[in-house]
Amino acid sequence: MADLILTTFDWVPDMPRGYVRDLRVRWALEEAGLPYRVESVPFRGRDSAHFTHQPFGQVPWLTDGDISLFESGAILLHLGERSDALMPRDPRGRAEVVEWVFAALNSVEMASLPWSLLAFSGLKGGTPEWKVLDDFVSIRLRHLEPVLAAREWLAGAFSIADILMADVLRLLERFDRLTEHPACRAYITRATERPAFMKAHADQMAHFAAADR
Amino acid sequence: MADLILTTFDWVPDMPRGYVRDLRVRWALEEAGLPYRVESVPFRGRDSAHFTHQPFGQVPWLTDGDISLFESGAILLHLGERSDALMPRDPRGRAEVVEWVFAALNSVEMASLPWSLLAFSGLKGGTPEWKVLDDFVSIRLRHLEPVLAAREWLAGAFSIADILMADVLRLLERFDRLTEHPACRAYITRATERPAFMKAHADQMAHFAAADR
Repeated sequence: MADLILTTFDWVPDMPRGYVRDLRVRWALEEAGLPYRVESVPFRGRDSAHFTHQPFGQVPWLTDGDISLFESGAILLHLGERSDALMPRDPRGRAEVVEWVFAALNSVEMASLPWSLLAFSGLKGGTPEWKVLDDFVSIRLRHLEPVLAAREWLAGAFSIADILMADVLRLLERFDRLTEHPACRAYITRATERPAFMKAHADQMAHFAAADR
Repeated sequence: MADLILTTFDWVPDMPRGYVRDLRVRWALEEAGLPYRVESVPFRGRDSAHFTHQPFGQVPWLTDGDISLFESGAILLHLGERSDALMPRDPRGRAEVVEWVFAALNSVEMASLPWSLLAFSGLKGGTPEWKVLDDFVSIRLRHLEPVLAAREWLAGAFSIADILMADVLRLLERFDRLTEHPACRAYITRATERPAFMKAHADQMAHFAAADR
């Protein structure tokens, strides 16, 4: 089996630490018990080699033999195909995981991340612009809440869909947006109490802390 | 082969016509030449059966035998596995398509759709909130433009990644956001001149127009 190499930044400011998207990949790799190593690229001064692997100048990307993959969703699907711990083999179970992978990224995060950009910029408030984005988040959470109240994990057993959805919701929780959504909060707790999350999170924090020295 | 059934709304207001996400599925089905039929659910008065298929109360969903799939990205990946016209078979080519599928939905649309919500609400303007979202779109387009200037399609041959990226960009074009991005505009033109797009678009328009009578 070819070495799996996860590439992330060498350093990031304090604010995004614990939330950089290499966390999703680390978490999946830990759940699956797949061996991997971590490499770094400069946060400041992204060169053309960086853009060859990640055309938007972001992280992470994963190399697996002669395949180099960017986008956390694409990387997790790729890993899901390598481990039953991340995605079932049967077509119906697999389809259910894949639809929730996209729901996390294209239904929930498409609302929550722009909302978080405003919250992070100190623009949380009563403006019409804020209301449009806040309503967008509300409508998603209103439908997600009963789903998460009724099941432990999104697609039967724990899967890559839960890694993505829990990580997406973590950012809303950070900005106190889930106070009226107890099932979403309980789901985050279930997910982040998993040893694979805790190791992935600690490893990311240690990786960036090492660069401060 | 089981019948493929695409479900969309029975009617929508004028504004979203031509942009409802069943278009992406129709387009892929037309490219692949896969037979399908279209069913409708009420736009007004979404019942519990609707939420069973689509937990966020949206459209489309696709049924393929005993599999029912929501999320346009998940549906297109499913169809991609059924046709070489939509996604190559070799692992490396497939990985390239999958990463661009996620790039369209989680890097570009995550910026462009919230921006469009503000534009649609008449909130295009000089506020700090608008600037955060407009900058988010700018940074994505700045990196996408040279990619699309250098290649005809995102992942070698035309694929489901192009269906998604072109459809995402169409909404920015509608609000005149691509005037400084000629490669993005030329790419939309290449994509929407394809007979499969033209048929899918005409079929969607006819479907909703029929409900007006």
